[in-house]
Amino acid sequence: MPRQPVGVESVERFLVESPEWKFVGGKLCREFRFADFVSAFGFMSSVALVAESMNHHPEWSNVYGRVRVELVTHDAGGLTELDFELARRMDDLAVRQPAG
Amino acid sequence: MPRQPVGVESVERFLVESPEWKFVGGKLCREFRFADFVSAFGFMSSVALVAESMNHHPEWSNVYGRVRVELVTHDAGGLTELDFELARRMDDLAVRQPAG
Amino acid sequence: MPRQPVGVESVERFLVESPEWKFVGGKLCREFRFADFVSAFGFMSSVALVAESMNHHPEWSNVYGRVRVELVTHDAGGLTELDFELARRMDDLAVRQPAG
Amino acid sequence: MPRQPVGVESVERFLVESPEWKFVGGKLCREFRFADFVSAFGFMSSVALVAESMNHHPEWSNVYGRVRVELVTHDAGGLTELDFELARRMDDLAVRQPAG
Repeated sequence: MPRQPVGVESVERFLVESPEWKFVGGKLCREFRFADFVSAFGFMSSVALVAESMNHHPEWSNVYGRVRVELVTHDAGGLTELDFELARRMDDLAVRQPAG
Repeated sequence: MPRQPVGVESVERFLVESPEWKFVGGKLCREFRFADFVSAFGFMSSVALVAESMNHHPEWSNVYGRVRVELVTHDAGGLTELDFELARRMDDLAVRQPAG
Repeated sequence: MPRQPVGVESVERFLVESPEWKFVGGKLCREFRFADFVSAFGFMSSVALVAESMNHHPEWSNVYGRVRVELVTHDAGGLTELDFELARRMDDLAVRQPAG
Repeated sequence: MPRQPVGVESVERFLVESPEWKFVGGKLCREFRFADFVSAFGFMSSVALVAESMNHHPEWSNVYGRVRVELVTHDAGGLTELDFELARRMDDLAVRQPAG
């Protein structure tokens, strides 16, 4: 059931496997830095497609080449497998773009 | 010279003409609310094209149908005509999408 | 079963309800004309989100403000309810943008 | 003057440097193949930003992971430096996405 909150040990395991992400205020957080706005927005467009098709959307902000993301599953009141899945998809999409 | 800071009276005039925008912390701020993520991201994609072609980019965040925007011209150390122009273009693009 | 081919009478009914679409070479076809590239690509970005989340993608081409679309369900060997659904979603998204 | 038509030798030099492109019917043509629609549309979103900011737009079509492009400068009645420039930017953006 992807919208069930995960336990602490699942979060810890995720953070070990995905050290770019932090667990802050009950959310998964990561800042991506790209070379420019074209790279950042190309990344965001791909992520938007993935998020809409998962029906699970990020909280995110962008300034030029920087994209900050926070993930949580509001209806579950915490992190779920959906957040881990979206985080991993973002990581895969991010490595395609030149870093800033 | 679009990257010259504008005077207080220009800001005041803009805020009268564009009452959805506020002047907070030296920046122009507005929150857009759309019906869903598809509407919000369609809006963001159009804005991204405009911003890149102006070479003037917003600070913005998005959660589902909500898009919060802050505009300032960092190299000018304040608001410039570019901020007014981008704000007006955003207003024009926003009315096309269903409100949330 | 959305990926079952529909019968002739379903196609005819769709074309009556949606007269902007034509049935050509076994596909649903429509040309959208927008005021400019910003409008056309904003439309395409919203459609892309819908298409990906339906896992049903258009054949489409774009030149500046013009977007030509062809819809068919290849694995079904013809039109299915997915094509009608995507066509209707495109019509809804298109009216938001200024026409060219 | 970027909107002056280039000579035959410029076209030939470009085609040697960029062998993925063909010169067909007076236009530069290339087909890009990506792993999926998410990759293809991420590419298209970045290209759209570049094209709009150059005020020079491609003729392009997309089906799932495939993007076919034709470039020409209509007001110049032939190829110009803008076409070479946009082609090179597309090549740079395409290598970021996984091939299909």
